[in-house]
Amino acid sequence: MITKSKVGRYDFVAEPFHTDFTGRLSLGVLGNHMLNSAGFHSSERGFGISFLQANNYTWVLSRFALELNEMPADGEAFCIETWVENAYRLFTDRNFAVLSQDGQRALGYARSVWAMIDLRTRKPVDLLGVNNGNIVDYAAPEKSCPIEKPGRIKVVATEPARTIETFYSDVDINGHVNSMKYIEHIMDLFSKDFLSAKRIARFEIAYVAESYWGDHLSFFCDELPDDEYAVEIRKHVSPENPVGEVVCRSKLIFCNK
Amino acid sequence: MITKSKVGRYDFVAEPFHTDFTGRLSLGVLGNHMLNSAGFHSSERGFGISFLQANNYTWVLSRFALELNEMPADGEAFCIETWVENAYRLFTDRNFAVLSQDGQRALGYARSVWAMIDLRTRKPVDLLGVNNGNIVDYAAPEKSCPIEKPGRIKVVATEPARTIETFYSDVDINGHVNSMKYIEHIMDLFSKDFLSAKRIARFEIAYVAESYWGDHLSFFCDELPDDEYAVEIRKHVSPENPVGEVVCRSKLIFCNK
Repeated sequence: MITKSKVGRYDFVAEPFHTDFTGRLSLGVLGNHMLNSAGFHSSERGFGISFLQANNYTWVLSRFALELNEMPADGEAFCIETWVENAYRLFTDRNFAVLSQDGQRALGYARSVWAMIDLRTRKPVDLLGVNNGNIVDYAAPEKSCPIEKPGRIKVVATEPARTIETFYSDVDINGHVNSMKYIEHIMDLFSKDFLSAKRIARFEIAYVAESYWGDHLSFFCDELPDDEYAVEIRKHVSPENPVGEVVCRSKLIFCNK
Repeated sequence: MITKSKVGRYDFVAEPFHTDFTGRLSLGVLGNHMLNSAGFHSSERGFGISFLQANNYTWVLSRFALELNEMPADGEAFCIETWVENAYRLFTDRNFAVLSQDGQRALGYARSVWAMIDLRTRKPVDLLGVNNGNIVDYAAPEKSCPIEKPGRIKVVATEPARTIETFYSDVDINGHVNSMKYIEHIMDLFSKDFLSAKRIARFEIAYVAESYWGDHLSFFCDELPDDEYAVEIRKHVSPENPVGEVVCRSKLIFCNK
């Protein structure tokens, strides 16, 4: 019996210290609120932290794509709706809507793809085999998410635009660089002049491998036509190993404000 | 007539993506929650964003000192109490208690010193001259805050331990490096081994001058006896100007876990 709504809705306020120099919520913070909403929603349905810890499992974010008409402004109340679109053996699609406080106006939508990993074997768990496969009972494929799915991202640059070292504040409880920290570092590639004139219309990221405290991350960046950028983050890039190892790939499409 | 309680109490939960590799809330996030609590409390009493914007004023954090028995753990609910201890012409002392959810157990205490600045002149505002001087009616000097006031911090190191460039994600809506971002960068000076064995017992920071997007920040660090560290952040340090300009000074006292 399903007693919980298939769609969770969670309230947020754009806090003063979470807004950027333009007075809008920063992308990494919005992403963090979405991850928290996903966490609340899945916990309420028996796929949260206590289920995961009891089984030594963890959710792993594989892909994330977001389209925005407008970023919440400093002090603005808004809500995030989230729901499972589909669940398969190895992946589940979870969607998001960012709405005005009254739920009437869509600020944006997002799609994400998740796997569940067994921490002992690092192998994916069969999602249809846990909790009697009831994840599919929570799916709401009929609810509309009017943005394209995450696509393939290709980067051809051979010289990094920047290389950074990772520290304490980059890593999460698992010791991995926090998935939203990559987004902060990617946004940090853009200049003040550029970000004064443009805003994010679509942002996409595909997580390929984990990185850790002390890893050097190199950012390879293609500037494409129409304010589009493709970024590949690689670790362990050195003169002896100029290719390194891909950590994640991201695509950003900007538009005029 | 005072209808509002002199002490504000605000509820928080240590979110999964706000905890560090040890599973405890990170210091910068706790500081951010305190600043938000201060913002809620002062707004409720007529000294918030709408009052400030109408007058072209802003609150500026001058000093902050925190002592912790224990940092909230991943998923833990806690609350922050905040109150004005005293108000003078140019400064006001605001204190904080970090308490367990039921308010019965003290996780830590903090003290802060604030000035109000006129954004047109960059000069301090006479706090006793605004809102009919009613800030003093909100003061609760009788409420105990059992930690020492922020003291004088002196750093003698002549070579920076690290120099970083500041980017998009460092700055706030005023274009200044966010006061909590300095704390993140200071924590990033410490190694994983050190932070695995030790925890913050007392943290103190004095803000001296603003820094901006693109500024290079150099971290001068004295290692003192008894797991004590003093850090001075300076901008504009160069071979021609090895002293640069002081942005802030911080003192950290660690203890064994």
